Amino acid sequence: MQDSEDYLRKKAFFDSLLTIYGRKPVLEALQDESIPAYKLHLAQSNRDDSVVRAIRDAADKRNIEINLCDRKALSRISRNAKQDQGVALDLALPHYGTADSFLNSLPASFELLALDGITNPQNLGMIIRSACAGGIDGILLPQKGCAQVDPLVIKSSVGTVFKTRILRCKTLHDTLARFREAGTEVIGLSSHAKRTLSDIGGSGCRIFVLGNETHGVSDAVSRISDSSVRIPMQNQVESLNVAVTAALIAFRKQL
Amino acid sequence: MQDSEDYLRKKAFFDSLLTIYGRKPVLEALQDESIPAYKLHLAQSNRDDSVVRAIRDAADKRNIEINLCDRKALSRISRNAKQDQGVALDLALPHYGTADSFLNSLPASFELLALDGITNPQNLGMIIRSACAGGIDGILLPQKGCAQVDPLVIKSSVGTVFKTRILRCKTLHDTLARFREAGTEVIGLSSHAKRTLSDIGGSGCRIFVLGNETHGVSDAVSRISDSSVRIPMQNQVESLNVAVTAALIAFRKQL
Repeated sequence: MQDSEDYLRKKAFFDSLLTIYGRKPVLEALQDESIPAYKLHLAQSNRDDSVVRAIRDAADKRNIEINLCDRKALSRISRNAKQDQGVALDLALPHYGTADSFLNSLPASFELLALDGITNPQNLGMIIRSACAGGIDGILLPQKGCAQVDPLVIKSSVGTVFKTRILRCKTLHDTLARFREAGTEVIGLSSHAKRTLSDIGGSGCRIFVLGNETHGVSDAVSRISDSSVRIPMQNQVESLNVAVTAALIAFRKQL
Repeated sequence: MQDSEDYLRKKAFFDSLLTIYGRKPVLEALQDESIPAYKLHLAQSNRDDSVVRAIRDAADKRNIEINLCDRKALSRISRNAKQDQGVALDLALPHYGTADSFLNSLPASFELLALDGITNPQNLGMIIRSACAGGIDGILLPQKGCAQVDPLVIKSSVGTVFKTRILRCKTLHDTLARFREAGTEVIGLSSHAKRTLSDIGGSGCRIFVLGNETHGVSDAVSRISDSSVRIPMQNQVESLNVAVTAALIAFRKQL
């Protein structure tokens, strides 16, 4: 019994870790003391150059544990041998969580963005930045079919990924179905919708689904949505950049 | 007298031409019959491959004049020998104009965006796309210090650059000064401003100045602005992507 509680506690902790990699992103994260870091991983094969020394020094200064390992172990930790440059860092972000944990204690009202097939890391970063600034309560990020948080996303989010609630899930369809069962309204963005964004009322429990830039929201996700809305556009423009759409949703009550 | 009138008419016509280059952008523009094209320029050194043939055929089909010239002449036309791939196309866009012509017949009310140091072509394209969809009346684009309309911008604007009023000017400072003399309100975006975007009223004659992503609006332009506004942000986010800012301005009355 003790063992399984211990296991679950550890699992929850490791689930909450975001491992980033690459020398520049790792050094920048270490230098920003507002970003909680858990452990630094360095490949023994790294040459002791000025950047690696700066990374070590920054970790030492913050008393962050350093794990020296061989190149193979490091690539298992980073999961990106091509781009890790022999450096990985586990971040213990308070806002990096799972859809499951959010579902277990739903607030009385909230607005989330759900990402359906957002494959471009730059767009993902910009969506996070806009959502964070506009006060969105979290971003549902499925492991399947979407870009994941990596150095490009961190850069394009201008660091806001560290203070935005990211709710990971396996597949969007199943997770949205569970939110619907819990009484959350699921609204897909679609240029063909009859309702416009301004028809959506004030506070409530609501998820806006943003689809792939070329193909829109997938059929499977459309089918389990409650409704769809569009953003009215002039000059026969057919679509907006997905990060712009995210911003218009996030800021719509404040403008 | 006849001569100088003729000269001015011709000058105005050539001023209104936008020359694009590169095989893919030129072919796409030729294939879209809604984009008015004036003349196709081809380097004699081009190999007669399938793309060049497709470009020729598309021009023939639309009865567009073809100018065969040597490589040097072509690079003078494209002004970008490195990227023109031996192909340039003059577009006669009704919305591609100058700040001067707009100033000569100011509408009773209008909103423009002015770009101050927007050097990233992708951002320029996204600004144009958002402004076009949100119904902004035009974009003031100085020749100095800003990206210019090129294939990357066209691509990132998703074709909206062809239906957005682009008002070219030499320097932003002098042009904004002339707008102010004509009674137009010039408002700089600044994260330090006291007023927020929602304080700006309904219709009027108004220019919003968007600054460089890193340095904001330049000092020279700030000094001749009437006021500044900010977009209120949550979670201590300090700035938004400039195309997102453009979208929030353009769509603010419709959300």
